Amino acid sequence: MSVRPQTLSIIGFGAFGQLIARHLRPHLALSVCDPRVRSNDLPQVDPTQAARADVVVLAVPLPQLEGVLHAIAPHLRPGATVIDVASVKLHPARLMLQILPDHVEIIASHPLFGPASAAGGLAGHRIAWCPLRGKGHRRLAAFLRGQGLEVIETTPDQHDRDMAVVQGLTHLIARSLTRLGPLPQLMATRSFQKLVEAAALVQDDSPELLATILRANPHAAPVRARFLAEAAGLAAGN
Amino acid sequence: MSVRPQTLSIIGFGAFGQLIARHLRPHLALSVCDPRVRSNDLPQVDPTQAARADVVVLAVPLPQLEGVLHAIAPHLRPGATVIDVASVKLHPARLMLQILPDHVEIIASHPLFGPASAAGGLAGHRIAWCPLRGKGHRRLAAFLRGQGLEVIETTPDQHDRDMAVVQGLTHLIARSLTRLGPLPQLMATRSFQKLVEAAALVQDDSPELLATILRANPHAAPVRARFLAEAAGLAAGN
Repeated sequence: MSVRPQTLSIIGFGAFGQLIARHLRPHLALSVCDPRVRSNDLPQVDPTQAARADVVVLAVPLPQLEGVLHAIAPHLRPGATVIDVASVKLHPARLMLQILPDHVEIIASHPLFGPASAAGGLAGHRIAWCPLRGKGHRRLAAFLRGQGLEVIETTPDQHDRDMAVVQGLTHLIARSLTRLGPLPQLMATRSFQKLVEAAALVQDDSPELLATILRANPHAAPVRARFLAEAAGLAAGN
Repeated sequence: MSVRPQTLSIIGFGAFGQLIARHLRPHLALSVCDPRVRSNDLPQVDPTQAARADVVVLAVPLPQLEGVLHAIAPHLRPGATVIDVASVKLHPARLMLQILPDHVEIIASHPLFGPASAAGGLAGHRIAWCPLRGKGHRRLAAFLRGQGLEVIETTPDQHDRDMAVVQGLTHLIARSLTRLGPLPQLMATRSFQKLVEAAALVQDDSPELLATILRANPHAAPVRARFLAEAAGLAAGN
């Protein structure tokens, strides 16, 4: 990457890719790569072309990541930066380090917001930031901070440990509540109302995202088991 | 009860009894009965004297209710009103109807707020209201509405069904989260933050209240079992 990135491609133009595009388009020349979603006003490119950008953002569902990495790897330019935005970090970090050529920089990131919570803008929201290779991450982090984001530097393992609680339990609880059917509204207490609001915020997340959070994070299952064991103990009066 | 109640006694002067006293003392002549807690400025009476008030509010932990009912029953005056404030309603309703003499009116109630959530006043808060015997409940409900409370008339069974979800699950989830130990703060999402806030609101409730909510409500166990089964299913990818 030269003095500053000029071009950025987004591979995977789902809800999150579109959110990124809305916020980045005033700053960079954007292109979009997604065979299933068309953009009305951004250049559509194939993976080979997308790989030639200064910054390549991977916003595909996690199960597609490995295939995309193989598709772009031969076409990435020396000094380019590849960033993923998946909700877990150990698994994509391992894939990117294994598959991408040595001449690109790599950042594993996780924006801690979504289309629902960031509807009013990025300011005050947070992004987990794991620089894996190269030094360009500093300049990009500074750019994101300039957009009002709080950039939290961490490691893939620490990220996944934290998220096993933060997202793993929130999604587990929220979806389980939703599956119980219509919830009592008239008799809600303030604390229950907060649970209902938490559930509403993650209710529309995709099944792929739910699967990623619940099962692609190696720390999720043990944290969940501890939570469910505590709940069973409380129910039994322990 | 004559035109309007003149005297009110509160039996059980714990956190909730004290909250009631703060809000009712401008309106009625109050007395307090609790061998374990002294009031600095309200008359302390024994159960026999407490039973002679126009309105007797029972704010003791549920396991003590049966004993208190037997102690006051012979001393209640014709036309007096007895109100309990426990967090479940089927069990206390049954006890009150069995033990109290026919010449008193009975209301089972559940204020849907506590010392933490009502720190700023009663206005806008809700109380579940189950008239069990007599007609004085209308005048008392009107008085409570005048204090800004929303009075929700319901039956003990419907109350317990609703609360098995509203309080049963909130307390189960909140306490289980708390038992996991320190929670990640830096990486919190908005939805997780709401869970943490819900947990904080019920964190200081007494062990007796927790036991009442989780185990004295006959609908709590089946609702909890459904919730935990949904959670286990989600964890397994169903």
